[in-house]
Amino acid sequence: MGKEEMRRLEKQLQFIVEIDKVKNIFRQTYLADAGRKENDAEHSWHIALMAYLLQEYAEEQVNVSKVMLMVLIHDLVEIDAGDTYAYDAAGAETKRDRESAAADRIFGLLPEDQGKYFRELWEEFEGYETVDAKYAHLLDNFQPLLLNDASDGRSWTEHSVKKSQIYKRNEKIEEISGEIWNCMQKIVQKHIEKGHVEDA
Amino acid sequence: MGKEEMRRLEKQLQFIVEIDKVKNIFRQTYLADAGRKENDAEHSWHIALMAYLLQEYAEEQVNVSKVMLMVLIHDLVEIDAGDTYAYDAAGAETKRDRESAAADRIFGLLPEDQGKYFRELWEEFEGYETVDAKYAHLLDNFQPLLLNDASDGRSWTEHSVKKSQIYKRNEKIEEISGEIWNCMQKIVQKHIEKGHVEDA
Repeated sequence: MGKEEMRRLEKQLQFIVEIDKVKNIFRQTYLADAGRKENDAEHSWHIALMAYLLQEYAEEQVNVSKVMLMVLIHDLVEIDAGDTYAYDAAGAETKRDRESAAADRIFGLLPEDQGKYFRELWEEFEGYETVDAKYAHLLDNFQPLLLNDASDGRSWTEHSVKKSQIYKRNEKIEEISGEIWNCMQKIVQKHIEKGHVEDA
Repeated sequence: MGKEEMRRLEKQLQFIVEIDKVKNIFRQTYLADAGRKENDAEHSWHIALMAYLLQEYAEEQVNVSKVMLMVLIHDLVEIDAGDTYAYDAAGAETKRDRESAAADRIFGLLPEDQGKYFRELWEEFEGYETVDAKYAHLLDNFQPLLLNDASDGRSWTEHSVKKSQIYKRNEKIEEISGEIWNCMQKIVQKHIEKGHVEDA
């Protein structure tokens, strides 16, 4: 192994150890057993698997392996920028700048070719325009909804979440999968009836 | 959506919620910051990303997206069978039976086609014979070594691990990547010198 190849492997390993920190970035969603909140690494693992399992419901052809990689890295910026709760309007305003600086630093640890590709994947996710990005967002939003359902709406109740907020956040889901959107609506309706989500 | 399709989606969602439990299966490895032990979901997330980043070091062509899926599901059997520490000889004896029954139940939750494929992927991983399985094992073993290195050998010290145990566990790594094996040997050597691994 030459000096330059050694340096390349060192950069990759430095990145691999750095991103371990995402295991300590906790989200507002509780695990299915409601025992504790979930962290970004767990969430990303879960939706990468869902990307494979639910591909048949995407109404346009998705590139599943690309989406898997996209969702595995989509929250790495939160190592520096922190988690912004889905319904935190004040946090959302500064989110883009904080996350962009984080992407510079974190993806910048990698060899240039890999760092550039990860940055592009992350920008594609954030852009929310391509079929793959829309499918990735579907997974990113559907997974916490499933956990909220399993944990009897604990996170929704704690944050007094309204139906209109959930619908606003998920307004593009129907474009990519009518079937999953129907399923999500049914879950929300169930929790309105249970009093965990406000019907407003 | 017809009745049969509804039932298919229900099975997939039941599996997705069931596997949430792997987030509570803790391993013996500490996170890089040594703050707490790592769980299976976090470990699987980490090595799925490593599968992409380190593919260039595999001396034979690997199917990266297949390996990513393989490592994302490789520890699901531990939901029922528990984590068997790498150097627990007594646990290793009963591991195969416990894990096989777990695979029947857990992959059996899925629609037949997807359950069959996941079972095959898991059997391929366990078989440790194909190039993809060897590369998956390389990742599965290299990642805790990197975390042990970052956490100053905490888990090795706690379990009085010997160099010969680490070498035995990793004896097939060189077949798939001489470069990674060299790197692993250097890390082990460093921790022998620091007194975290016994030179025996």
